[in-house]
Amino acid sequence: MRYSQVFGNNTLRHNPTTAKSISYSLLLRGGYVRAIGSGLFALLPMGIRVMNNIKSIIRDEMEALGGQEMSLPLVVPYNLWKKTGRDKLVGKELVRFSDRAGHELVLSTSHLEPITQLARLSINSYRDFPRFLYQFEAKFRDEEKVKYGLFRSKEFTMKDAYSFHRSYVDLNNFFPKVFKAYRAIFENCGIETIVAESAVGSLSGDRAYEFLMPCSWGGNRIIRCSSCGYQANIDVAVGIKDKISEIPLDSEEVSTPGCSNIGALMEFLDVPAQRIAVTTLYRTIKGWALVTCRGDYEISIEKLSRLLEEPVVGAATDEEVDSMGLAPGFLFPSNEVTGFRFVIDDLVAESNNLIVGADKPDRHIVNANFGRDFESEIVGDIARIHADNKCIRCETMLEELPAIEVGNIFKLGDFYSRAIGLSYSEENGDVAYPHMGSYGIGLGRLMSAVVEANHDERGIKWPRSLAPYKFFLMGIGKSFRVKNVVESLSEELGSDVLFDDRHESVGVKFKDFDLLGIPFRIVVSTKSLQDGNVEFYERETEKTWRVPLEMVVKTCRALISEDI
Amino acid sequence: MRYSQVFGNNTLRHNPTTAKSISYSLLLRGGYVRAIGSGLFALLPMGIRVMNNIKSIIRDEMEALGGQEMSLPLVVPYNLWKKTGRDKLVGKELVRFSDRAGHELVLSTSHLEPITQLARLSINSYRDFPRFLYQFEAKFRDEEKVKYGLFRSKEFTMKDAYSFHRSYVDLNNFFPKVFKAYRAIFENCGIETIVAESAVGSLSGDRAYEFLMPCSWGGNRIIRCSSCGYQANIDVAVGIKDKISEIPLDSEEVSTPGCSNIGALMEFLDVPAQRIAVTTLYRTIKGWALVTCRGDYEISIEKLSRLLEEPVVGAATDEEVDSMGLAPGFLFPSNEVTGFRFVIDDLVAESNNLIVGADKPDRHIVNANFGRDFESEIVGDIARIHADNKCIRCETMLEELPAIEVGNIFKLGDFYSRAIGLSYSEENGDVAYPHMGSYGIGLGRLMSAVVEANHDERGIKWPRSLAPYKFFLMGIGKSFRVKNVVESLSEELGSDVLFDDRHESVGVKFKDFDLLGIPFRIVVSTKSLQDGNVEFYERETEKTWRVPLEMVVKTCRALISEDI
Repeated sequence: MRYSQVFGNNTLRHNPTTAKSISYSLLLRGGYVRAIGSGLFALLPMGIRVMNNIKSIIRDEMEALGGQEMSLPLVVPYNLWKKTGRDKLVGKELVRFSDRAGHELVLSTSHLEPITQLARLSINSYRDFPRFLYQFEAKFRDEEKVKYGLFRSKEFTMKDAYSFHRSYVDLNNFFPKVFKAYRAIFENCGIETIVAESAVGSLSGDRAYEFLMPCSWGGNRIIRCSSCGYQANIDVAVGIKDKISEIPLDSEEVSTPGCSNIGALMEFLDVPAQRIAVTTLYRTIKGWALVTCRGDYEISIEKLSRLLEEPVVGAATDEEVDSMGLAPGFLFPSNEVTGFRFVIDDLVAESNNLIVGADKPDRHIVNANFGRDFESEIVGDIARIHADNKCIRCETMLEELPAIEVGNIFKLGDFYSRAIGLSYSEENGDVAYPHMGSYGIGLGRLMSAVVEANHDERGIKWPRSLAPYKFFLMGIGKSFRVKNVVESLSEELGSDVLFDDRHESVGVKFKDFDLLGIPFRIVVSTKSLQDGNVEFYERETEKTWRVPLEMVVKTCRALISEDI
Repeated sequence: MRYSQVFGNNTLRHNPTTAKSISYSLLLRGGYVRAIGSGLFALLPMGIRVMNNIKSIIRDEMEALGGQEMSLPLVVPYNLWKKTGRDKLVGKELVRFSDRAGHELVLSTSHLEPITQLARLSINSYRDFPRFLYQFEAKFRDEEKVKYGLFRSKEFTMKDAYSFHRSYVDLNNFFPKVFKAYRAIFENCGIETIVAESAVGSLSGDRAYEFLMPCSWGGNRIIRCSSCGYQANIDVAVGIKDKISEIPLDSEEVSTPGCSNIGALMEFLDVPAQRIAVTTLYRTIKGWALVTCRGDYEISIEKLSRLLEEPVVGAATDEEVDSMGLAPGFLFPSNEVTGFRFVIDDLVAESNNLIVGADKPDRHIVNANFGRDFESEIVGDIARIHADNKCIRCETMLEELPAIEVGNIFKLGDFYSRAIGLSYSEENGDVAYPHMGSYGIGLGRLMSAVVEANHDERGIKWPRSLAPYKFFLMGIGKSFRVKNVVESLSEELGSDVLFDDRHESVGVKFKDFDLLGIPFRIVVSTKSLQDGNVEFYERETEKTWRVPLEMVVKTCRALISEDI
């Protein structure tokens, strides 16, 4: 391909101010992507070539596991979401609209409901297992904040895959195979990932794992133990929390005017956060719950959902608290007034002499103790671990690591098949429900992660497997001989070469080669041709070497098959 | 591939009542597609294989013309549509919504605006021409009626392509190349198409052609002359209309109580439709126009738009007519009351003694004559031709043919580049606007058309180029030998073969082979093996022949490369 003809060959010299991550900045500068709206992106021809390489790596791994490609529309009937109850769990990120005939539709943020519906039409018997389906399909999430280019966009393409099994045991046996395939995919794409147990979130499944790549601006937080190797997403990580063991003192109600938030209360009473037990009202999918956690810890919605065995939607607003006859900011850890379930974090139960709300405005109780001043049957670990807590296995100090998520896998069990009504006849005639797994990789996100992990100050360094072109070819000097050689090499190397035939200086071409991240540069110059050679340069190793003209094509073939 | 493991192998014996076309019926029955909502379809693995073959045929032709693949999102900013004014031209089929940040967005029914916007970021100089870009991307059209499965669905995938040229001459030179590529694509997909000049419609371009396939239930109408070969979409077709040449009689106002539509008027006055000149109020993108056409012809919005040189949106409602002080159903062909432009079809101008509205309720004028009783400067051909009109070139009687549209190509000129602000610097520094072409093929529609043109009462007959598998392999008899041979053939033929290993009768397997439309059937039976043979059968020709076992793989290879 002649670079002069490539759509998007107007590379940018400097980092655009709009780009908040180095990967987005380099992808913009190199002419791989362009924004056409907030969180809406076009892939330019160079970007498509990288994306097709990513798809090909993924497709190979999916097919090797018996994966069959299919495709679902982005727009699906809303009633499928109502069947699983996820219509209530998913908020504004799900775009809902009605067509002119009045059908309620959504822009899919995931395809769990429609794939289960589709399976209903094709899986009927115990003979129809296992099935493993995948697609490369657009999703749309109306994100509150779009960021980092393709990393968090509104419309994005995912490889999503779904497996259907006759039993939970079969799902458990299949699951590690996908796990291994994911490892291979990320390795082949040139990134190193950490696998961490993660939140199930609004997917309502049994178990979930994330493939995470450490990254300074990553929004995911991994808790890990450098000693025993324990690692998990902060939403589900466990650790030894710091309890406060003291002799219980007499409790006392005190005036705390205006102290409806922990900051104000700490200042007014001059106490540290760990002295305070904060009570919050949460809405779950089935009702309400009052939840108490120590002030130096955050509540993990995921842990809380698991403890309650029902999905938690979010915290109530002050207006909602008020309308229930409670005092916002001064909640007491009890359900006496409301009859709501009351949940306390085990650390609150194990700490003495805490400060709690007094259930009336501008009043708190000091020296409150669990079992004496308040009580509950629902006690468990619902707090996010800190980096300075200790490992529950080996008591080493834990670490916290920012990371970005590049893939996730879920054991869904039979939640979706039961909700959507995907049943089949067992060998003995019984009606049964398949167990499902779901496996996702965001393609734009993966492409960003690859650049994040493979670049230097001059530009991208694509792994050979993903590079849009393997070779960047250019001539130096205007001699007829040089021109002839580059033209004929360009033809011989065909679709593997990007031939920079632009009317630009050598310096500009060198800079663009570095920016684009193509693995090898081939320079034909009057000087090198005097000895019958051309010059090879490898972007990754910065090695330069000379190759006799007649050996160039053979050398390129060997480089492609990675023999050298 | 083992058929027992194919997702969607539960073929249907009978035509589903929901399927209104034979193609949709067969695609459903064979497990190629499934509906998951009104106008919303999933492609099953067998369907994906056909679709990937279609894409590959298209991709080859696009790349041969220097086409570069890219991709745009389905969701795009509405403000791009406002820039071209198409927000007013396109009605309810364009889904408009706002994201949570308040940005107005649309689900693209076409990608003309965003591709022009994208080109703004990449085309700056006269050196940046030509550019030819294509994508396979989803579109969404909120159709009033969905019909015929993939043929008219709400969400659908298109190959859309766009060319950018330095001048209209360059566009004109490139256009025939795409025309030829389209011919090749449809031929390679096994369908015969007719090319007809077509309406530009809401695309606002200069010239458009449709690739149409004759089909009994097709919603497109082609007018053609069997003698000289003239053919055009009915919206733009020209022909010799039947004028009424008589001596003008004296005009007279008559009472026509309740005759506000042509049917009532014909009955009340006992006259044929050609005696009546109907006047209708139309809304254009810039204002209003009163339009008169003879009662035995329909107005072509396309012809009217071209005559007025501005897009016509549609007819006014009775309420709108009323609010302008006019009498709905009794409009007089004049602009005296409103000052609106007034357009008459040339056939009205050339016919005598017509009946026209009297501009007041329940009154008409009989024996009205153009030039005497009413007049206008805007006279032209705005009527749709009838099948019984004569060819303007050779005076042969024209024919009307129902057809389905499978592709279209547009000369857009510089309408979009000017509206979106895509300019570039000419060699002398002048600012200029590129001329654009746009080229579309609906993939689901094409797949349906292929089945419509290639089937019999037993099922589909895929052209070899598109078949999901080239060979359908099965054994008859339970002998170890038969089992061994089919297993090893299945392995050797790899991804070209669908091996029917299901526990079904020979009859069921034969029926499914016919239904699926795979080109060749290979049957291994105890009997044929006695002579060391297996049996080949070709779906298209219904030929059966025997091939020695050791020659099977070689024969298959030859069949794939179409040597035999």
